[in-house]
Amino acid sequence: MKIALIQNRDHGNVDSNIKDTENKIREAASNGAQIICTQELYTSNYFCREQSEEHFAYATEIPGPLTDNLSLLSKETGTVIIASLFEKAMAGLYYNTAVIFDTDGSLLGKYRKNHIPQDPHFEEKFYFAPGDTGYPVWKTKFGKFGIIICWDQWYPEASRLLALKGAEIIFAPTAIGWLPEEKAELGEKQYSAWLQVQRGHAVANSCYFAAINRVGTEQPIEFWGRSFVSNHYGELISEGSTYKEEIIYAVCDLKALEEHRQIWPFFRDRRIDTYSDITERSL
Amino acid sequence: MKIALIQNRDHGNVDSNIKDTENKIREAASNGAQIICTQELYTSNYFCREQSEEHFAYATEIPGPLTDNLSLLSKETGTVIIASLFEKAMAGLYYNTAVIFDTDGSLLGKYRKNHIPQDPHFEEKFYFAPGDTGYPVWKTKFGKFGIIICWDQWYPEASRLLALKGAEIIFAPTAIGWLPEEKAELGEKQYSAWLQVQRGHAVANSCYFAAINRVGTEQPIEFWGRSFVSNHYGELISEGSTYKEEIIYAVCDLKALEEHRQIWPFFRDRRIDTYSDITERSL
Repeated sequence: MKIALIQNRDHGNVDSNIKDTENKIREAASNGAQIICTQELYTSNYFCREQSEEHFAYATEIPGPLTDNLSLLSKETGTVIIASLFEKAMAGLYYNTAVIFDTDGSLLGKYRKNHIPQDPHFEEKFYFAPGDTGYPVWKTKFGKFGIIICWDQWYPEASRLLALKGAEIIFAPTAIGWLPEEKAELGEKQYSAWLQVQRGHAVANSCYFAAINRVGTEQPIEFWGRSFVSNHYGELISEGSTYKEEIIYAVCDLKALEEHRQIWPFFRDRRIDTYSDITERSL
Repeated sequence: MKIALIQNRDHGNVDSNIKDTENKIREAASNGAQIICTQELYTSNYFCREQSEEHFAYATEIPGPLTDNLSLLSKETGTVIIASLFEKAMAGLYYNTAVIFDTDGSLLGKYRKNHIPQDPHFEEKFYFAPGDTGYPVWKTKFGKFGIIICWDQWYPEASRLLALKGAEIIFAPTAIGWLPEEKAELGEKQYSAWLQVQRGHAVANSCYFAAINRVGTEQPIEFWGRSFVSNHYGELISEGSTYKEEIIYAVCDLKALEEHRQIWPFFRDRRIDTYSDITERSL
């Protein structure tokens, strides 16, 4: 089973971003990709760098013209497409949402980002309500997968809940980068943290994990790219560059997961009688 | 704050193992270590390689002569000692337990391993009842820490619960190694998985994570050593060798954790309203 991650930069306007990603989806499909995932909020720049009312104009309704086009593209290419969008649910209610289209063009469902960050230049609590879709998993003919979005990727609970529902791959569209005042001291440390915590999810949940990040500088953030796919041993089986737009491909052996889980049966031995305090804020 | 991990081989009998670890605890203390942790089941070989009634003779009562000696050693050296033992609770009831002594020699408490493995040559369900102590955390003058033991280290829930109780360091005494029939194909993959999942816990919980493994071959297991300490960025700040007995030291900057948690506030944004299904076996 072959997946493709589309690591892009902002092309300056929504039309260009949509067109460019469409082209890359067609390219990925022609190269044999079966599930294709965009970066976070792929139609625009990462506008959450600042709190500004005018950026709500980037929001789109689901379904709507944008998702209608994605539906046609899924059907045309025979691929499963995962696209990360800014969703307008109603006036005054917006989500950071991923939509999933099956190979017949049907909208399989959507996932609304559960964990919303708020820190300088990642001002998402201004735009997005916390997700209300739980942690859904979709079964397609190419495998069963779930989605988390950016800040979700730091939370082991999110990946675990997807795995308990049977996810074999977790996709994580994201927008993470360096701030100029931190890069020299913390740049590689921050990248390390991002990489390690997600490889950890892959291991703990005996699944594949695919992170899709953007590249390019959008003042003041320098997005660090390096989209990757980790296997269930925490090994990077595919990795993008730091600066370049590219499509990252990986072949996932889903059959191997079942065998692996029989030898290392993490799910057999969970002490579910001891976990209830995880729903507390602190203890 | 300086910690020390004692990575040993089996010296052939209980008296030699106890004596050798005592010497190394004194050495670590004289080198400035403040919290010192043994490998899993440090007084014996890793007897769980097989299911045999005679190995119950390794079990010890708590308190008892062994823990009395550890208490004296803590007081003598002014260190906090974490020791992983085979505990006899009563006839027919045994645990895989860690005991913690404070600098005044008092028994701070004990942790009984919650997740018990059972696979060829790691036959622990034969010996140990699942732990009944929850996930305790201890406050000492050198910092607040929790303990998980070996198979626990694969479970994000365990590390998360310790972090929610304020753990700044998680210690993980362990006994993990390669089986000869698997090493060529899976050896480095298995090591990768072990390393990545634990670094992931350090990142997700913004804490230090210290794993202490044994070395040497005890037929048929070749223990892979490589005890390590990860910081909250998932960076290895200290690492032992694969084959050698040694004391691994690391300096932990606990003050940095608080600052880090203010910039990357994972604990602020946990979606505790969405986690309750974690207590299910599957979904």
